[in-house]
Amino acid sequence: MPNPRAAMLVIGDEILSGRTRDANMHFLAGEFTKRGIDLAEVRIVSDERAAIVGALKALSAAFDIVVTSGGIGPTHDDITADCVAEAMGAPIGVREDARAILAEHYERTGKELNEARLRMARIPDGATLIENPVSAAPGFTLGNVHVMAGVPSVFQAMVASVLPKITGGAPMLSQSIRVERGEGDIAGPLRILAEEFTDLSFGSYPFYDAGLHGANIVVRGTDPGRVDAAMMRLNDLFAA
Amino acid sequence: MPNPRAAMLVIGDEILSGRTRDANMHFLAGEFTKRGIDLAEVRIVSDERAAIVGALKALSAAFDIVVTSGGIGPTHDDITADCVAEAMGAPIGVREDARAILAEHYERTGKELNEARLRMARIPDGATLIENPVSAAPGFTLGNVHVMAGVPSVFQAMVASVLPKITGGAPMLSQSIRVERGEGDIAGPLRILAEEFTDLSFGSYPFYDAGLHGANIVVRGTDPGRVDAAMMRLNDLFAA
Repeated sequence: MPNPRAAMLVIGDEILSGRTRDANMHFLAGEFTKRGIDLAEVRIVSDERAAIVGALKALSAAFDIVVTSGGIGPTHDDITADCVAEAMGAPIGVREDARAILAEHYERTGKELNEARLRMARIPDGATLIENPVSAAPGFTLGNVHVMAGVPSVFQAMVASVLPKITGGAPMLSQSIRVERGEGDIAGPLRILAEEFTDLSFGSYPFYDAGLHGANIVVRGTDPGRVDAAMMRLNDLFAA
Repeated sequence: MPNPRAAMLVIGDEILSGRTRDANMHFLAGEFTKRGIDLAEVRIVSDERAAIVGALKALSAAFDIVVTSGGIGPTHDDITADCVAEAMGAPIGVREDARAILAEHYERTGKELNEARLRMARIPDGATLIENPVSAAPGFTLGNVHVMAGVPSVFQAMVASVLPKITGGAPMLSQSIRVERGEGDIAGPLRILAEEFTDLSFGSYPFYDAGLHGANIVVRGTDPGRVDAAMMRLNDLFAA
């Protein structure tokens, strides 16, 4: 059975404005790889309703699994939940189970569950809540879309609670070799190897540092014996 | 005149597999912001022809400017140039001007311009070359699509040579204030401010660190006087 194919939608302009560097994408990519889920596409869009809805429709139709991050807080630019509802054709409103979680959390921490915070209890009908052990406000799963917070610590906790429920495939294994030779000298032999080992993927990642140049060749596949066999061939070809 | 809207397409599976963290997106976002170009969307796709061509068609139709990074080297998985030609409906082949640049470079460095390296001279008809001062193999501009290398040092050099040719808008200015208060308490006043200063954008970026939580509020706009005015209001509201 082929591995499930996943996409991620990052919502918000922190990354698009250059203010911050991505962290959630890198985390999710690593977790998916370990579980045999192929992260096949990532999109980053700003807090614009049309952009979010359009991306959600496209990705939820094209991929087995979609994970979103960002835009589920209490501020005016947090519109992800409403956009997911629109994209998936589900009604949305303040849901009692989510409201109860927030009410208990804010009572315990001595804060008011005001109108802004109550926005975080807006959950589409039919969605399953995702636990948020960090700051209470839940994410949710609707169809194949898993809606998570953008704050990295919360995102990571939500990924941890959703991952066991997702059926992955054989974990993707990778091995790499560093070759201090121009990519143009590597390309010919590498193409022949890629044609021979069609069940593996061969990536070539050039580097230029400290006056040296070359490439890291990464072999990926689910069968450890095949990955080993390809690495032996690579060693024969390039370790001279 | 509104600022031009741009998109970036990152090609290759280094980021999708979790092997590396993005650097080019962060660099481009910062450069665009300085020049008054709004980076409105980023997509990351793997080395699959259909995914690359589909993304190129969608982005080049929807945005004023598209920048791609990755997939223009000599190896078998470097298919960006051919995909751009297909998406834009242009013929492609080894072009004499690009071949001459490579021939001179490899003669000078004592390497062979072999079949793999010659792939890097495949440039669509009608494209303008983008200089590569690091490793010679050029990028190119075709229509509103600027095709650049994925190696960060080369990508940055190519961005530097293309940016002066792109007409930007008024540079986007930003100021921020750190508020050690829950986002739920910030959200109400912030929404009122956002409705008053409709020419500015207000972002709220929550943090939880070292036991503290709160949010950084970022005000963005092109008019320095308006950004200052909004910051004074924010200080009055939250600096207590």
